[in-house]
Amino acid sequence: MPEEPLLDVLRHTVGPAHVLTGDSLGAWEQDRRQRRPQGKALAVVRPADTVQVAAVVRACAATGTPIVPQGGNTSLSLGATPDASGRELVLSLSRLHAVRAIDPHNLSMTVEAGCILHNAQQAAQQAGLLFPLSLASEGSCTVGGNLASNAGGTQVLRYGNTRDLCLGLEVVTAQGEVWNGLRGLRKDNTGYDLRHLLIGSEGTLGIITAATLKLFPQPAAQLTAWVAVASIEQAVVLLGLAQQYLSAGLTGFEVMGRPALELVARHCPQWRVPLLAEMACPWFVLLENSDCESENHARNRFEALMEAALAADCIQDAVIAQNQSQAQTFWQVRESISQAQAREGLNIKHDIALPIARIPAFVAHTDALLAQAIAGVRVVNFGHLGDGNLHYNVQAPVGCDAAVFLREQEALVNQIVYDTVAQFGGSFSAEHGVGALKVAQLEQYQSPVALGWMRAIKQALDPQNLLNPGRVLRR
Amino acid sequence: MPEEPLLDVLRHTVGPAHVLTGDSLGAWEQDRRQRRPQGKALAVVRPADTVQVAAVVRACAATGTPIVPQGGNTSLSLGATPDASGRELVLSLSRLHAVRAIDPHNLSMTVEAGCILHNAQQAAQQAGLLFPLSLASEGSCTVGGNLASNAGGTQVLRYGNTRDLCLGLEVVTAQGEVWNGLRGLRKDNTGYDLRHLLIGSEGTLGIITAATLKLFPQPAAQLTAWVAVASIEQAVVLLGLAQQYLSAGLTGFEVMGRPALELVARHCPQWRVPLLAEMACPWFVLLENSDCESENHARNRFEALMEAALAADCIQDAVIAQNQSQAQTFWQVRESISQAQAREGLNIKHDIALPIARIPAFVAHTDALLAQAIAGVRVVNFGHLGDGNLHYNVQAPVGCDAAVFLREQEALVNQIVYDTVAQFGGSFSAEHGVGALKVAQLEQYQSPVALGWMRAIKQALDPQNLLNPGRVLRR
Repeated sequence: MPEEPLLDVLRHTVGPAHVLTGDSLGAWEQDRRQRRPQGKALAVVRPADTVQVAAVVRACAATGTPIVPQGGNTSLSLGATPDASGRELVLSLSRLHAVRAIDPHNLSMTVEAGCILHNAQQAAQQAGLLFPLSLASEGSCTVGGNLASNAGGTQVLRYGNTRDLCLGLEVVTAQGEVWNGLRGLRKDNTGYDLRHLLIGSEGTLGIITAATLKLFPQPAAQLTAWVAVASIEQAVVLLGLAQQYLSAGLTGFEVMGRPALELVARHCPQWRVPLLAEMACPWFVLLENSDCESENHARNRFEALMEAALAADCIQDAVIAQNQSQAQTFWQVRESISQAQAREGLNIKHDIALPIARIPAFVAHTDALLAQAIAGVRVVNFGHLGDGNLHYNVQAPVGCDAAVFLREQEALVNQIVYDTVAQFGGSFSAEHGVGALKVAQLEQYQSPVALGWMRAIKQALDPQNLLNPGRVLRR
Repeated sequence: MPEEPLLDVLRHTVGPAHVLTGDSLGAWEQDRRQRRPQGKALAVVRPADTVQVAAVVRACAATGTPIVPQGGNTSLSLGATPDASGRELVLSLSRLHAVRAIDPHNLSMTVEAGCILHNAQQAAQQAGLLFPLSLASEGSCTVGGNLASNAGGTQVLRYGNTRDLCLGLEVVTAQGEVWNGLRGLRKDNTGYDLRHLLIGSEGTLGIITAATLKLFPQPAAQLTAWVAVASIEQAVVLLGLAQQYLSAGLTGFEVMGRPALELVARHCPQWRVPLLAEMACPWFVLLENSDCESENHARNRFEALMEAALAADCIQDAVIAQNQSQAQTFWQVRESISQAQAREGLNIKHDIALPIARIPAFVAHTDALLAQAIAGVRVVNFGHLGDGNLHYNVQAPVGCDAAVFLREQEALVNQIVYDTVAQFGGSFSAEHGVGALKVAQLEQYQSPVALGWMRAIKQALDPQNLLNPGRVLRR
């Protein structure tokens, strides 16, 4: 079937206003965060509901047209934008944005895939509850994309990754059928867990159209502390103490290397970095304690933890935020690191995970290998230590042209970092997924047996290879 | 290839002492808990390690011999015993019972599939940590079986099902390859989540040989309360309050109908059922509060909860256990229900899950349907209300022959219960799985789209249909 009839079918299915073609589709074709070359879509189609999504997929299946599902277009791994061929249809879930239901007794809510994460959080809050998923792009990313990529963020330590927050899914298959698996059940052992197979499959096995998500009681109080430590070993010991003293109250444990914070001090002077000037320490930790009782109780627990940490000689100094505004400043410093790094110049980013106990040895080993390979190279290391997740970024030596550095050294730097990650039993993609960006890494570092299974599953569920082809697995 | 050469190969692989044949294999052939007819194994093979498991599977693949993986043989769904054909090889994981490693900083441990759950709990405890999975058969069930069936139990409310406690797996595929996915990572988005696909697949997609499991800090104190409520609606309201006041400290919320406790009082007189004689209430709740601070703090929180519950008029009376021994008695009463029921006579068991908010309406509706269909029928209802999981069991009318009742009414009772479960958006198998017992229910109540996916996945990963054939999916 030639191209025009497909577009006609789509216009008939979703209405002509929702089939976009032409040259001004940059908002859907450009992976904005990566600033990579713009793709070229056959068209952008915006179905209104699940039935229309299924009809679009059937039309594509009939014509062999590849589909790129897209939510908020905030992928960091080229997972949701079309390639340059002009053959791929972008299927935007943006019109499926309803919060379908909130069930306070069951502590769950059902939202559509295109619902922006921030709006889902707000809906839960208005019901007096908490949807804890929280990440930098929450103002524009969508719940469907969070599920497709199993997003992480800052609350994983307590609440898990996105997959741990999902009770049920509604999915359109590669054949354009609808699987209604929207259940709010906490226990359900009736066959293979298709929900978990779909979550994190980055749109390659099915298109998530809605999800039932877990909600939690809102904490009564949140306290935030900023701690200076003498080494990353000390940070790991402090993490163990914090887990013991705060238990499930520990909702954040972020680690930041001194070079990362020095960039914030230089490029984001509106934020005063706590303890940076006062302490010569190489590492800093941001802790968050979410308490179900009261601010008073939270403060007592935090103080007990700090006493124990001082006694164990694993902290050098600490500041507990005196109010919500100071706590927000602590978080803003943490969240300004990427921006400060960008202002310093282009850099080579890694989103890696390691067993927590091995992080100190990994950091020492990889820092040394990089210093040996590239004189003057700067490591800007920070991340979610509580999850073993580091953003281990590599910046050009002072005075080097960053673009030249990237062009000449990216392959070598990636090889050093990822080889060492593999050697330490870690993951080359902790929370950003594979997308089109890391397909080669998946082939290189994932077990051949696991890869064989993934290919067999893809072939079984999407034999025409229509759903996000070339992402995760090579086309 | 005839049968003898296979057994010769197996004897060569695992040693002649570990290939058992003949007529005294009842311990492996009999599903002890169900007291169903005994199967007949081709042989029982007991490999010593993962390499031997893989070699056994390759030998079976070469001869087209079906394999039934078995752990502690405590399946409640005929999931781990051979059929009557005499063609199926029982592959016992019992010799793979090592605790390979405990990593206190990473809060994880790696154990082999045949490790008895109680031994895994003990190993964690000796390291000063908690492995929270806890169920009635923990003295004989194995971690591999817990994973294969995604076991639930009494701590799910706080710690999740077995799948939520697993960070990584080692698996032998249907082709006899070994996938080493033993990682202690909290975040890892590198392709499809094969771990979650394997967990709960009941030995039909691969044979789990080892797992890396999550550990937790041990609670500083545990308190247990026994509460009388005027209705199951009140129990649901109390659950919401308990979640709000105790947050993650709430590790148990069990509900028991009066008829269940009256059976305990009659058949297990060594346990005094709290409040049963004093209160005419139709429902009772057992709550457990695991506190990371102190017994004092736990008691204060519990008392605050009870005050709030009295103010909300959702409890009639409550007893807080004064010491560990009284707390154990509370749990023993709860755990004696199945035994008391058995002493009362054969009964029709259901392991169902529902959205928590719909449980009161479900119970009223189903009780009425059963009473209408079978005069004098007795419902013995209890379960893990915090997980929406009821053991909604049906006992013959007083004076009826239980065996006749079972023979004549089981199909009708199951139809009434499962149809209503489906109507209320629930699951016909919350924590016991499908096995060979509920294959027809899976076909009847699971979505056809989901079933199609499951069959396609089974075909893709085990095209010879050698791994536990006929369990979960029809042969």
